[in-house]
Amino acid sequence: MIVTGSINFQTRGDCDIVDITPQVARQVAESGVNSGTVTVFVPGSTAGVTTIEYESGLLTDLKRLWERVVPRNVHYDHDRRWGDGNGHSHVRASVLGPSLVVPFTDGKLTLGAWQQIILVDFDNRPRSRQAVLQIMGE
Amino acid sequence: MIVTGSINFQTRGDCDIVDITPQVARQVAESGVNSGTVTVFVPGSTAGVTTIEYESGLLTDLKRLWERVVPRNVHYDHDRRWGDGNGHSHVRASVLGPSLVVPFTDGKLTLGAWQQIILVDFDNRPRSRQAVLQIMGE
Amino acid sequence: MIVTGSINFQTRGDCDIVDITPQVARQVAESGVNSGTVTVFVPGSTAGVTTIEYESGLLTDLKRLWERVVPRNVHYDHDRRWGDGNGHSHVRASVLGPSLVVPFTDGKLTLGAWQQIILVDFDNRPRSRQAVLQIMGE
Repeated sequence: MIVTGSINFQTRGDCDIVDITPQVARQVAESGVNSGTVTVFVPGSTAGVTTIEYESGLLTDLKRLWERVVPRNVHYDHDRRWGDGNGHSHVRASVLGPSLVVPFTDGKLTLGAWQQIILVDFDNRPRSRQAVLQIMGE
Repeated sequence: MIVTGSINFQTRGDCDIVDITPQVARQVAESGVNSGTVTVFVPGSTAGVTTIEYESGLLTDLKRLWERVVPRNVHYDHDRRWGDGNGHSHVRASVLGPSLVVPFTDGKLTLGAWQQIILVDFDNRPRSRQAVLQIMGE
Repeated sequence: MIVTGSINFQTRGDCDIVDITPQVARQVAESGVNSGTVTVFVPGSTAGVTTIEYESGLLTDLKRLWERVVPRNVHYDHDRRWGDGNGHSHVRASVLGPSLVVPFTDGKLTLGAWQQIILVDFDNRPRSRQAVLQIMGE
C-alpha cells in the first residue's frame, strides 16, 4: 500500500531549518497505512533532510557547523561558472543528503521524544520548497 | 509484507561505535521476507547510523574525524542553554543521520564483504539504545 | 511488488563522481512498478551515494570539500595497520553513507530539474563497482 503526499512551504534560505514533523506525522496518521516507512525526500540540489532536537540553541549550533566546515567565503568553481553565489549551498546539500526514511507502527513515527524531522534550506535566497512523502506499508 | 524488529543494547557513549550487522542479518533472515529492504533507524537525537569496515584502526580514525570536524571543546549554544554538555553530540548526529536502508535478496543483505552496519553513539555518557528495524518486501 | 536491479561500471577512484541517474531512471521506468521508492545502495566501504547538480564546477567543489575536511595526508590508523593507504576513503564513505532512497510516481523519479544521483568512489585506485537498486511499490 502506497500513499504519496507532499508538504509545501516557504523558506528564508541561508541555512533556514524547518521542522516538518507535524505535517509528516499527520499525513502518516491519515494515510490509512498502519505499519511501514515514510521516505522524506527533497527535490532540488541545495537542501537536505535529517533530524535534530529542535531547540533554538542547536539550530544556531548546526548553522555554525556548516559555516565552519563548508564556508560560503572560500572559492567555488560553481560560482565562477554560474555566478549565482550558492556553491556552498550545493556542497552542503550533497553532504547532508536529500532523503530520510522513518519507520512507523500503528500509524505513529518511531522518533525519539526529542527528535524532529527537519528540512535544511542551504540556498542563499528564500525558496518555495516541496518535500515529497512516500508512505509505504500495510 | 512488513516485519518490525528492534535491537536493544548498552553503549559507552563518547563516539562508541557498535557493530549491529549480526542482529540485522539474523532478523532479516528470520523474518520470512525473501526480498526487500531493511530500514535501520535510531530514535534519539545524539546517535547515527552508517556502514564501515569494522576494524579497530578505522574506528579510531572515524572518532578522530568527528573530534576534528565537530569538536567537543568549541562553544555550543545548546550547552549554555541546557547545561548537559552534549551540543557536539547533537550536531554530529544530525550530520550523520539516523537512518540507513539496506536491500536484501534471498534473505541476505547486499553488504560488501568488508562492510558492517554501525550505530554511532555520540552522546557524552553511556546510554541504553534501541535501533528499529523495519523489514519490508515479499 | 519488488524488482531488484543493479548497475555495473568502472570508476577511476580518487573521488571519482559518477552520474547514475539515467540507469536508475530507466530501470524504474521499465520495472512495471508505478509508484514507490528506489533504494540505491553501494556495497563496499569506500564509496557513497548522494545527489548533486552534475556540472563540472560543483564536481571540483565537492572533491575539494572532501580533501579539506577528510584529507588524505593526515595520519590514519587504518593505513598503519593495513598499508593500503585508503584510510581517508573509508572515513569519507562512512560520513557520506552508502544508501539513498528516491520516491517515484507514474514511473518517474521525483528528482529536481537540476538534481542527479551520484556514486562517489573515494577509493585510491580504479574499481569495478556495482550499485544495487531495490525498486518497491505497486
